[in-house]
Amino acid sequence: MNVNGQAYRTIWLADDGISVRVIDQRRLPHEFTTLDLRTLDEALIAIKEMAVRGAPLIGATAAFAVALALRADPSDAALAASVDRLVACRPTAVNLAWAARTVASQVMRLPTKQRWAGALAEAQRICEDDVSCCRAIGAHGADLLASLDTGGRPIQILTHCNAGWLATVDWGTALSPIYVAQQRGLSLHVWVDETRPRNQGAALTAWELGQQGIPHTVIADNAGGYLMRQGRVDLCIVGADRVAGNGDVCNKIGTYLKALAAFDNRVPFYVAMPHSTIDWNLSCADHITIEQRDPDEVRSIVGLDANGKLSRVQLTPPGSAAANFAFDVTPARLVTGLITERGIARATRESLAGLYGIGSAVKALPQ
Amino acid sequence: MNVNGQAYRTIWLADDGISVRVIDQRRLPHEFTTLDLRTLDEALIAIKEMAVRGAPLIGATAAFAVALALRADPSDAALAASVDRLVACRPTAVNLAWAARTVASQVMRLPTKQRWAGALAEAQRICEDDVSCCRAIGAHGADLLASLDTGGRPIQILTHCNAGWLATVDWGTALSPIYVAQQRGLSLHVWVDETRPRNQGAALTAWELGQQGIPHTVIADNAGGYLMRQGRVDLCIVGADRVAGNGDVCNKIGTYLKALAAFDNRVPFYVAMPHSTIDWNLSCADHITIEQRDPDEVRSIVGLDANGKLSRVQLTPPGSAAANFAFDVTPARLVTGLITERGIARATRESLAGLYGIGSAVKALPQ
Repeated sequence: MNVNGQAYRTIWLADDGISVRVIDQRRLPHEFTTLDLRTLDEALIAIKEMAVRGAPLIGATAAFAVALALRADPSDAALAASVDRLVACRPTAVNLAWAARTVASQVMRLPTKQRWAGALAEAQRICEDDVSCCRAIGAHGADLLASLDTGGRPIQILTHCNAGWLATVDWGTALSPIYVAQQRGLSLHVWVDETRPRNQGAALTAWELGQQGIPHTVIADNAGGYLMRQGRVDLCIVGADRVAGNGDVCNKIGTYLKALAAFDNRVPFYVAMPHSTIDWNLSCADHITIEQRDPDEVRSIVGLDANGKLSRVQLTPPGSAAANFAFDVTPARLVTGLITERGIARATRESLAGLYGIGSAVKALPQ
Repeated sequence: MNVNGQAYRTIWLADDGISVRVIDQRRLPHEFTTLDLRTLDEALIAIKEMAVRGAPLIGATAAFAVALALRADPSDAALAASVDRLVACRPTAVNLAWAARTVASQVMRLPTKQRWAGALAEAQRICEDDVSCCRAIGAHGADLLASLDTGGRPIQILTHCNAGWLATVDWGTALSPIYVAQQRGLSLHVWVDETRPRNQGAALTAWELGQQGIPHTVIADNAGGYLMRQGRVDLCIVGADRVAGNGDVCNKIGTYLKALAAFDNRVPFYVAMPHSTIDWNLSCADHITIEQRDPDEVRSIVGLDANGKLSRVQLTPPGSAAANFAFDVTPARLVTGLITERGIARATRESLAGLYGIGSAVKALPQ
């Protein structure tokens, strides 16, 4: 999507053919810079420190990271170790493990000399798959938006965190329907949850909506319930870090609270995600490990100071403990539908499995 | 309560007998300073800019502010104008209007020469009333806490915003039961909602709990639902800016989301407030004017920078709009009980009116 009018993806192979270039999302919205990843370690740091983030994008990055590991050492041992380190790096999103294992299983059968090239090709295939999935999610979601009757006024959408193109390779999940709807000429306005503690909404979602020229308003995470009670939200759309086979959704901390408010006010609550986010092995999302991040992400925040410099300021008293749970679980009963590249499913095992043609009797698939 | 081991109130008459001294809450938790209010205008600025905040404390400040106005001009016209300006200053909390009108009605009958002294005495009486109400709320709430069976582990309480002693003259509303329970030897831990956009939780609640030596952990506003689903919250207690006659609660934005999560997880949800917060004239809280504050409170935040200076940093992209709704409404159906100075009422007109002995048939009281 657009950055100052020029089309970008979030991740691509640089012209040197060996560096993986990503947008450094830690500096947005204040500075637009890219970062080159040349080794597994550099990729791990980029994922851990959230230079790249968003379930689909950390999947794509992990795929490239396996390739980078194999360029340095194409042995079976190095391949296995790279997958293990990547999977342990951020525990909640399933795309990361899915992408790393997909690449590994593709290249395992290749002679070591061909592994780097094979892994690179597979990573690029995963990126293309992500782009086409996200584009298809956008089309299905835009159909849904077009079906809403708002009596002529702009459709009011609330979103949490960033599930836009910055969270994927391009287009996004939750925001893709909005971009496609805009192309189709629908009139929209987006309420953007700030999404503390890392402010992906205020920093990333607001930035990318602004770059696409989509009207939006940043609100504190606390405000969504009020807006829904006031009838000022027609629809909520969020992304997901992992969707269990039963339709439970694990997503950015605070998603559950918005789903409760939507349910209480009969506002439709949709989750948009590609197939790679579905964990068919999970009977419900309460079994997912919820990542706990550095409490300093709660205690302090980075912004642009009066001198135009990125500056970290302390918010809490020195002696106060803080806790930083990164995700929560929204039970399927609160989810109106799951917008996937194959269409919209109800948040049930039967509906989801039906969409993917894997039979409603399937309880778990092999990993 | 304690500041560095020394007992303080939030507002008092300075030794000069003409200045009203308050703790400047804009600089907490980073700096503890006081501010002297000598005129109505200074008091209005202190209320508007939230040097003083919290429904009971802005009530007490408004009472003193009427006195300050009368010191400069004791005429009927000046008295009426001061009340009007105070009531318009912050529209949501009812304590402000209640306190200003209470002082006005007391001094109206006095000769102009006695009005300053009369108003001052009435303001001080309102402060003493607030302290004894809050102390009584603490005692009733502590009984409730003591009745919880947590199997020997510390009682886990979640609170939103700041409804501690800093929001009142002393003791607090939501936090008073915690302070009284601590005195009684109960073991407690408090989850402190950060409370964006003004961070009264991270800045004020964390600070005052720390000063009293009460174990606490600051969390993003997004985290409460996750904690409740995990069974890590035994009870929620919040304050209120206005409680309608039917038990609906208007409180800091985000309160409604926590009440929904508490209800969904069968966690008791209590609201603590003195009589001055009840608006008997309101049949439900949806009629309350919700204050909208400066969007820059969402777009930027103040904290302590690396040089130990208070610094404001920008969080959102320059072109993004922001909205700043200060309060929301929690319907009575989500409220387990109202902790008042008279005891604990259910959130119904009958129960509340019964507690205050005004008869359950009363639909509205004269203003």
